[in-house]
Formats: sequence, C-alpha cells, structure tokens
Amino acid sequence: MTFSDPAVYTFILEHFGVAVSAVAGALAARGRRVDLFGVVVLALVTALGGGTIRDVCLGATPVFWIQDPRYVATATLFGLGTFIVARRRDPPMNLLELADAFGLAFFTMAGARKSLAFEAGPAIAVALGTITGVAGGIVRDVLLNELPLVFRKEIRLYATAAMLGAGVFVALRVLGLAEPWPAVVGMVTTLGLRLAAIRWDWALPVFEAGNPPR
Amino acid sequence: MTFSDPAVYTFILEHFGVAVSAVAGALAARGRRVDLFGVVVLALVTALGGGTIRDVCLGATPVFWIQDPRYVATATLFGLGTFIVARRRDPPMNLLELADAFGLAFFTMAGARKSLAFEAGPAIAVALGTITGVAGGIVRDVLLNELPLVFRKEIRLYATAAMLGAGVFVALRVLGLAEPWPAVVGMVTTLGLRLAAIRWDWALPVFEAGNPPR
Amino acid sequence: MTFSDPAVYTFILEHFGVAVSAVAGALAARGRRVDLFGVVVLALVTALGGGTIRDVCLGATPVFWIQDPRYVATATLFGLGTFIVARRRDPPMNLLELADAFGLAFFTMAGARKSLAFEAGPAIAVALGTITGVAGGIVRDVLLNELPLVFRKEIRLYATAAMLGAGVFVALRVLGLAEPWPAVVGMVTTLGLRLAAIRWDWALPVFEAGNPPR
Repeated sequence: MTFSDPAVYTFILEHFGVAVSAVAGALAARGRRVDLFGVVVLALVTALGGGTIRDVCLGATPVFWIQDPRYVATATLFGLGTFIVARRRDPPMNLLELADAFGLAFFTMAGARKSLAFEAGPAIAVALGTITGVAGGIVRDVLLNELPLVFRKEIRLYATAAMLGAGVFVALRVLGLAEPWPAVVGMVTTLGLRLAAIRWDWALPVFEAGNPPR
Repeated sequence: MTFSDPAVYTFILEHFGVAVSAVAGALAARGRRVDLFGVVVLALVTALGGGTIRDVCLGATPVFWIQDPRYVATATLFGLGTFIVARRRDPPMNLLELADAFGLAFFTMAGARKSLAFEAGPAIAVALGTITGVAGGIVRDVLLNELPLVFRKEIRLYATAAMLGAGVFVALRVLGLAEPWPAVVGMVTTLGLRLAAIRWDWALPVFEAGNPPR
Repeated sequence: MTFSDPAVYTFILEHFGVAVSAVAGALAARGRRVDLFGVVVLALVTALGGGTIRDVCLGATPVFWIQDPRYVATATLFGLGTFIVARRRDPPMNLLELADAFGLAFFTMAGARKSLAFEAGPAIAVALGTITGVAGGIVRDVLLNELPLVFRKEIRLYATAAMLGAGVFVALRVLGLAEPWPAVVGMVTTLGLRLAAIRWDWALPVFEAGNPPR
C-alpha cells in the first residue's frame, strides 16, 4: 500500500469506524458491574456484530473478521484503551456522538455494497446495510440486559437515518452512477439526517397502548 | 402461477403465516416505549427469525428472505399496519391466538420439510422444525428484555405442540407416506394440541427450586 | 470403535463435557418460572451454543450437532435428568464447578483446534476457542434475562482462563509440537487457572463509572 492507493484511505476509514464503535460499546458497560473481559466483548460485539450477522445471512463465510483479524485487533485495542482511560475521566460525549454518526454512515454503506456484491436485490441490500450499521449496538444492549437503545425514541433518528442513506446509495447504484459517488451521497444523507435529528430532536412515534388506563 | 397451481396456495398460506407472526410481534411492543423502527424490527424478527436460524445452521445460505424478499415486504407491511391500527383500537385477541396457532403449525412443518431436504436426520428435522416455529418469538422476547413467553407455563403447550406435530410429520415421511399427507397430519396435530391446551389449560411443569424456604 | 481406539476416549470426553454443560444450563433455570421445554432449551443452548456460533462464523455448516445428533441426545437427556432429580434435592455444587471447569477447558481446545483446521489464523483460533468455551453460557443468561455471569467479577477468572489456555494451545501448535501435547498443556493451563481463581478469589477489575457520586 502506498499513499496514492485508495485502499489506504478505505483502511483508515474502516478502522476509524471500528475504533469509534468499540469505544461506544465499551462505554456502555460503565458502572454496570461488568469486568474487563466483558468490556472487551461488548466492544467487539458493538464494532463487529452487525457485519457478522450480515455475512452469516449472506453465506459470506468465513465472516470478515476471520478473513482479516486486524478488525479484531483494532476493536480489542480501543475497548481496552477505553477501559483504562474512562475509569479516570469522562469522555467528550459530543465528539463521540459525532464520530459514532460517521461510523454508522460508513458501515451502512459498506454493508449495502457487500450485499449487492453477493447479489442481494435492492430492498435486501438496504435492509442488510441497516443491519450492518445498527445490529452490533442491539446485541450489545441485549447482552447488557437493556431494551435496545436503537428502538427507543430517546436516541432520535438513528436506524431510520441509516436506512434512508442506504436507500439513496442503492438507488444511485441501480441508476448506474459510478462509485464512489453513490457511497458518498449515501453517507452524507445518513450523516446529515442523524446530526439534524440530534440538533432538532427529530424522532419516530412510539407505540403506546391502545386503551390508556382511565 | 394460475389457480390450478398448488404453488398459489403455498404462497397464500406462507404469507398468511408471515403476516400473523408479524402482527403478533408488533403487538408485543405495545406500551413498551418502542418506536416505529423497533416495532417493524420486532415484526420482522418474530416472522422471519426462526427460519433464519434454521437456514444458518443448515448452511442454506443466502437465507430464505434474501432469496425471496417478498417475505420481508409482507412482514414489514403487517408490522406497520399493526402500528397504525392498534394505536386506536385493541385487536381481537382470540382471533389472533387462533391465527397464531395456525402459523405455528404451518412454519413448523415447513421447517421440518426443508431440514429433511438438506439431509438432516429425523431427530434433527424435528428439532429444526420446532426452532422454525418458535425461535422468532424467543428472539423478540429477548429484544424486549423479557423472559421468553414460550418458556413459561402461562402460554400452555406451545413448543411442545410444535415438536409433537413435527414428530408426526417426520415419522410419516420416514414411513413413506406421500406428500402432502405427512404435512397435513402434522399440522392438524400441532394445531389440535395447541388449541386443546388453550381450551383446557394444559401446561408443562415448572422447574421449582429444590429446597423451598421454610 | 474398540477400546484401543483413541476415538473412544474423545467420544467419552466430549459427551462428558456436553453433559456437564447441559446440567449447568438446566440448573440455571431453577426457581425462574421456566417450564420443562424451557429447561431443555437452556440445557441445549448452554451445551451446544458456543460451538454453533463458532461453526456458523467459520462457515462449517451444517453445524456440528446437525452432522452428529448424538450431541443433541446427550444434552437433552441430561437436561431432562436435571429437571427430574434437582426438583427433589440440591446438586453438589463443588463437584459441578469442578466438572464445569473441565468442560470449559475441553471445549475451548476443541474449538481452537477446529478453527485452525478451517484455516483461521492463530489470533482468531484463540478467539473462536474462547467463544466455543463461553458463548453457550452467555446465550443462556441472555435467554434468562440476566447480565451474563461470565462478564461479572463474581465468577472470577473464567473466560480469561479459557483464553490463556487457548493461547498456550495455539502457540504450541504453531511451534510444531505434536498432538495431543498442545491440547493437553492448554487444557491443564485453563483448568489450573480456573481452579486457582476459585480457590484464591482471583478476578478481573470491574468498569466503574468515571466520576463517582460525591
């Protein structure tokens, strides 16, 4: 790899996304009676869980982190680092939320692209892209014995931002636009929606019970 | 497809089963602080989760809903529909329970049949048929942060009804009875046991602690 | 198989490990409002869950218990047996803990070995060995709606003991030591660490919140 090789930038972006998800996964364990092993597992699950489910459903096995163990190394390192650093000081949450929105956008497009490469139809590519972006966080919350954050109004548009960005990406690909433009426009869509939702408090409606108690 | 083609009826039965499971999955989210995205995920997981686990364990990948996205469309549609309608009025629970028993019977036989086609032995075909019938509901309850309903006495015979019906189906297949009779008799067994269990309150014993407090 | 065949001993050790895990899985359901079906599912998941996740990630499908249903038979039998016996009397917990430590050591090495056979790199073989040893228990705790025991300080070194033993096994394999010695030394490492951790109360640190309330 040299600096003129686009693979360098893909590598950096991918591992940046993995690192951010791992930090978010590890932080979710704070103050929850989870030991060091648990923290590393939660970091790994958050960072690699969505892509694992995508690969297993597609039959793209061995899954991506078995084929390239550097993903496991990055996630483990940042999980451990978070454990060490965040015991002493609180992390900058705004910065983390921004980085996480970037990771969401990046992984969603990567997931949708891989699904198309494995000959999934357009609707399934959107679904698998969204799964790649959000399923790791769902599994983390299940392991922590919580209602998944991504199902809750409090997180504002998250999966919806991923899904719409994936929809834009797949539509532009189907229309024949050359890469990397579909991915760039899809990422900007997801990122823009997510940040706008945080800024202006956009959220989906909640499923209330039909007959409220009187 | 024409009306004389048995594939038409299979299509209708399958999508009826998917729709019923999706409605049940969406309803489980009522009043649980889950937003619209969460409701659709719970509908999809309930309707497609069991078959996904079966396909992944068999190595029948890409899994069935990647090969035929119409399952995803039906489950999404009925999940959304339930969200819209059930906010206003309570659903007819007796009717839903009846439809759900039908879905359980239908999917269990479909799962057992696919397992035999992938050369699973008879005992494994019974196990995978049962998984196809009940695992979606287990994953839904785990996502909702609840002890799975299917493990609890309150649901009365559910997985047991599926397992016994699958056993009848596999036994008749092994004995060489021509299709569709093994599937028909297996479905009637599961459906009959399930409805009888609801009517007469049949349930399995619960695992109490050995030494009750004195 | 004859008594001079090493396969006999492998068979006995494997099914001993499955039986011990199934008993542990069933016992975890005691006093938790779980019915007989739930108890058997928890026994199966605890005994076969880790290996299932390993096989699915490797693409070694159909998974091992579909290829050899005797694993399902052993786990079901011991799950049922625990349900019947442990309703009356409390099990000998010390003996069970000892047997469980043996099962952990055995399955971890079996998982690491299978991963190497499927051409996983050394780091991934350690990870998949650990997953084989501990993931079944994690899924069981998730189904029971609890924070996984293996993430908690109270269990003392468990996953860590598995991981270090797998590390020793893989290192000796990479160094070219002939089987069965890498597996024997790896098992002794895991078993020794686990029992020492129980005896002397060794545990990993817990992830406390950064700013304790003042």
